Amino acid sequence: MKRTHSCGELSMLEAGQNVTLIGWVAKRRNFGSLVFIDLRDRTGITQCVFDETISDQITSVRNEYILEVSGNVCERKDKNPKMATGDIEIIVEKVTIINSAETTPLLIADETDALEDTRLKYRYLDLRRPVMQKKLIERAQITRVMRRVLDDQGFIEIETPILGKSTPEGARDYLVPSRIHPGQFYALPQSPQLFKQLLMVSGFERYYQVARCFRDEDLRADRQLDFTQFDIETSFMSEDEIIEMTENMLKAVMKEVKGIDVKTPFLRMTWHDAMNKYGSDKPDNRFGYELHDLSDLFVNCEFKVFKDCLANKGVIKAICVDHQSHMTRKDIDHATDFAKKYGAKGLVVLKVLNGTVEGSAAKFFNEDEKAAMIKAMNAQEEDVIFIVSDKWKTACDVLGALRGYFAKEKNLLDVNTFSFLWVTDFPLLEYNEEDGRYYAMHHPFTMPKAEDLPLLDTDPGAVKAAAYDIVLNGYELGGGSLRIYDQKLQEKMFEVLGFTEEKIRSSFGWFVDAFKYGTPPHGGLALGLDRVAMILTGSDSIRDVIAFPKNANARCPMCEAPDSVDPAQLEELHIRINQE
Amino acid sequence: MKRTHSCGELSMLEAGQNVTLIGWVAKRRNFGSLVFIDLRDRTGITQCVFDETISDQITSVRNEYILEVSGNVCERKDKNPKMATGDIEIIVEKVTIINSAETTPLLIADETDALEDTRLKYRYLDLRRPVMQKKLIERAQITRVMRRVLDDQGFIEIETPILGKSTPEGARDYLVPSRIHPGQFYALPQSPQLFKQLLMVSGFERYYQVARCFRDEDLRADRQLDFTQFDIETSFMSEDEIIEMTENMLKAVMKEVKGIDVKTPFLRMTWHDAMNKYGSDKPDNRFGYELHDLSDLFVNCEFKVFKDCLANKGVIKAICVDHQSHMTRKDIDHATDFAKKYGAKGLVVLKVLNGTVEGSAAKFFNEDEKAAMIKAMNAQEEDVIFIVSDKWKTACDVLGALRGYFAKEKNLLDVNTFSFLWVTDFPLLEYNEEDGRYYAMHHPFTMPKAEDLPLLDTDPGAVKAAAYDIVLNGYELGGGSLRIYDQKLQEKMFEVLGFTEEKIRSSFGWFVDAFKYGTPPHGGLALGLDRVAMILTGSDSIRDVIAFPKNANARCPMCEAPDSVDPAQLEELHIRINQE
Repeated sequence: MKRTHSCGELSMLEAGQNVTLIGWVAKRRNFGSLVFIDLRDRTGITQCVFDETISDQITSVRNEYILEVSGNVCERKDKNPKMATGDIEIIVEKVTIINSAETTPLLIADETDALEDTRLKYRYLDLRRPVMQKKLIERAQITRVMRRVLDDQGFIEIETPILGKSTPEGARDYLVPSRIHPGQFYALPQSPQLFKQLLMVSGFERYYQVARCFRDEDLRADRQLDFTQFDIETSFMSEDEIIEMTENMLKAVMKEVKGIDVKTPFLRMTWHDAMNKYGSDKPDNRFGYELHDLSDLFVNCEFKVFKDCLANKGVIKAICVDHQSHMTRKDIDHATDFAKKYGAKGLVVLKVLNGTVEGSAAKFFNEDEKAAMIKAMNAQEEDVIFIVSDKWKTACDVLGALRGYFAKEKNLLDVNTFSFLWVTDFPLLEYNEEDGRYYAMHHPFTMPKAEDLPLLDTDPGAVKAAAYDIVLNGYELGGGSLRIYDQKLQEKMFEVLGFTEEKIRSSFGWFVDAFKYGTPPHGGLALGLDRVAMILTGSDSIRDVIAFPKNANARCPMCEAPDSVDPAQLEELHIRINQE
Repeated sequence: MKRTHSCGELSMLEAGQNVTLIGWVAKRRNFGSLVFIDLRDRTGITQCVFDETISDQITSVRNEYILEVSGNVCERKDKNPKMATGDIEIIVEKVTIINSAETTPLLIADETDALEDTRLKYRYLDLRRPVMQKKLIERAQITRVMRRVLDDQGFIEIETPILGKSTPEGARDYLVPSRIHPGQFYALPQSPQLFKQLLMVSGFERYYQVARCFRDEDLRADRQLDFTQFDIETSFMSEDEIIEMTENMLKAVMKEVKGIDVKTPFLRMTWHDAMNKYGSDKPDNRFGYELHDLSDLFVNCEFKVFKDCLANKGVIKAICVDHQSHMTRKDIDHATDFAKKYGAKGLVVLKVLNGTVEGSAAKFFNEDEKAAMIKAMNAQEEDVIFIVSDKWKTACDVLGALRGYFAKEKNLLDVNTFSFLWVTDFPLLEYNEEDGRYYAMHHPFTMPKAEDLPLLDTDPGAVKAAAYDIVLNGYELGGGSLRIYDQKLQEKMFEVLGFTEEKIRSSFGWFVDAFKYGTPPHGGLALGLDRVAMILTGSDSIRDVIAFPKNANARCPMCEAPDSVDPAQLEELHIRINQE
């Protein structure tokens, strides 16, 4: 087997040459005494012509057979400008059938109407579709560019353990029973967080890893049991420096993989501004519909809902959607139901028509309020204004979700626009009413902003973190933070989180002990590689950029994992199945 | 924090410049009113001098404190030629104590007498030792070069699942209970073997992955629960082409990481020749002591042991170790005990003295035999000849082990010599007397050598495989094979292995089904990256080139994994612990 060229590269430049190609039969057509075969490899397709002197050798050949063909490159009579090799064809002089193929259960073509479980069951065929090959190839390129950019800056790739220890806080762990230590379990890592920080304690200064991470959560379109994180940690770098380094890495990826120049520095906004303006901590700013605060405008409004809201320290916020006045009662109910999923008690919907606002709630507002509203929102004729009066966070969440709802409905989510931005100054802590305690918004090792340190004692909820998320088109690509490197501050943090001394010892003792021996200031971030690849390849799901993903039911329809196992295996692992 | 230079780079070129360094205090000495501090980062060490104007600011500073120092680069009076920066020192004008450090439980220096469990418990400090940093940095370089060489040849890195399915054959699996599917388990992959072959079915043609693999086996110095494999698979390439590609990759690694030109092509020998000449399928040819077959020479020998051996189709093989006649009775007993571990029933030991052979067994041989023996072995005065008479395989195993025994004793294993070679033509099958069946020597998908196909029916044990191992200094770095891509041949192979139809269906059904749809000829190999790094960094154990390894008891002394877990976790996973 010796091919001289791939199936995607021949053009008039090679006309007259004798070449040998190897590939899969993508299509076979008989035309009089001639047989035309489109031969496909991972680079593309070339048309091969078998005349009557040779066509009898391929009578059995059907789609997906593998052939080696040799012949002359000739100019085509009917050129196909849509095909990279459309100017030429091979007049085949010699053919070898390398392997045969049964009819495939799904069509090997970019377009498919196969169900996802069929695609996953025959994933090896699904991946033979050129569009899928392109996605995985692009994913590999993304990783390669990221690695190279960091390698060039003295980063060291270091592998951390997959068989680790179960830790409290965070998501559910996958456990692995130990054979050698009865009744004990390893846990698969949710991230290399602790290990990468220890590598900074070790003085490696610049670490990265393309790390497999595991979370036993229920699956969604952009979640998998295991996922891949481009994980970075550095010593002695400031938040700005880490952000700049990441931007340069992503800029190189966009340039080299997508051929797109993205401008740096990326837009940065604080968490508060992101929530306030976009109703999201991962705002998509490819489109408008920004949130406006109308509280001041309605401060004397007689509408009871607004009045009560403002009296309870709530806010009145709104978005304005253009050319939306065609909405029917049903459309409005649908949008209201959607808003309720995000915590809205109700939705005030006003159409801008005839220079004023109309709608069932319009009667609650006087003309001044109506005019002020239109002006504040810069609303145009036929726009629709959606108002939510609620606690600030709820109003933001609801309107942020509505923004996305209408952007999708109005087809504003252009997959070829890539809008990167940073969200910074996250709250350090989240208060959980149920438990009556604070939880770390990122993790308990996140550094508070220096200027907020005094608040840790007086108003922990107001403390902001040196934490930052990188966002692309409304998706959180990843995030990171500076870490606490001072032991006293770490102790204070545990105290605020309400961890007992015993809990600290048993959960993190081995980790915090490490910080006694000369820990450098450090910080880093992690990018969700699956998600980066999903967005850059214009895919709807991370499953499209993972070679062999699990389905939404956490199962591999191809190999049928998970599966029952031999009882002797469980015996050796000192466990048995609960028969419920 | 803004350093201008690293601690390893300053020389007289920077003399007179003002610089800022950040690093760990490696050593502190007081000398009159001066304080000398060796400041260390991952690149090296620089001497910093604090005079009486500033030394009071560092009275508290001890080893492993982190300092930022600024000052002038000056020529040293007492230059230290052993130190890269030994020509200069910094006269410190400004110092900031970035963090303090308690006394470390192990010394941060290349040499350590700490026990391995102490080193692993405080791995973050162990890894702070420059010698350990160097190993991990070199490991990262090795991986980087391998990736680049393959990237440049159009290989695509693709990740395969970590949560897979338990398969029969092979080593013990690690299992992961499923929460969503009660009583079912994922298995961690022993290798990406099946997935990489499916990627060839998908038409990717050239795949690689730096893959984490898992085998629940008892540990040795060069084994870990999980290990890393540089995993490669290609379509349409011959055995020779795969071998050549691998050689070029390793040649680049040796050149770029070690600065050593290794000659390609590497030596190749068949499995039979390797066993016959070196008594090993992973021969170390940095030294001699090759095995000689003396069966013909002793064909008329009256010595009963030899006579019986030859009558039973055994062989008489020997090695000759130079300048070894100083061996005492005790030394000989020791060597004999060692040989017995490898299956020897006994060992004939003969010293070459006074032009003949001496020793307790010498009386069994006549003068002709003695002379012939000396001549055949090219033995010199004071050499010692070790003879084993046994089945061919046992004789080879024993003498191969003895070769290594004496090479080690005589210090012939030069860690700076790198001797690569290929072992080819492995037997396809191994017969297991106990089970009365054949096992696949590599795995059931290995291609038999084309010329041996007819033997599959008549003499399966004699069939050789298109399988090859790459060996370095007596270690198997890795190996691979061409794979069966013909369905009929695969069925025949299963038949020879005695797999029932049911077993094939339940174990490999999903896999062999894939081969129906146009499978290309394919093959590949996998390199044990930990082992490659171990040898190239001159380490004794793979644990030295893994950031956070488990100890020989499969435990992480640092985080204490595995550990007991919350009963609620097990409940969720539908398992309970067997109380035995």
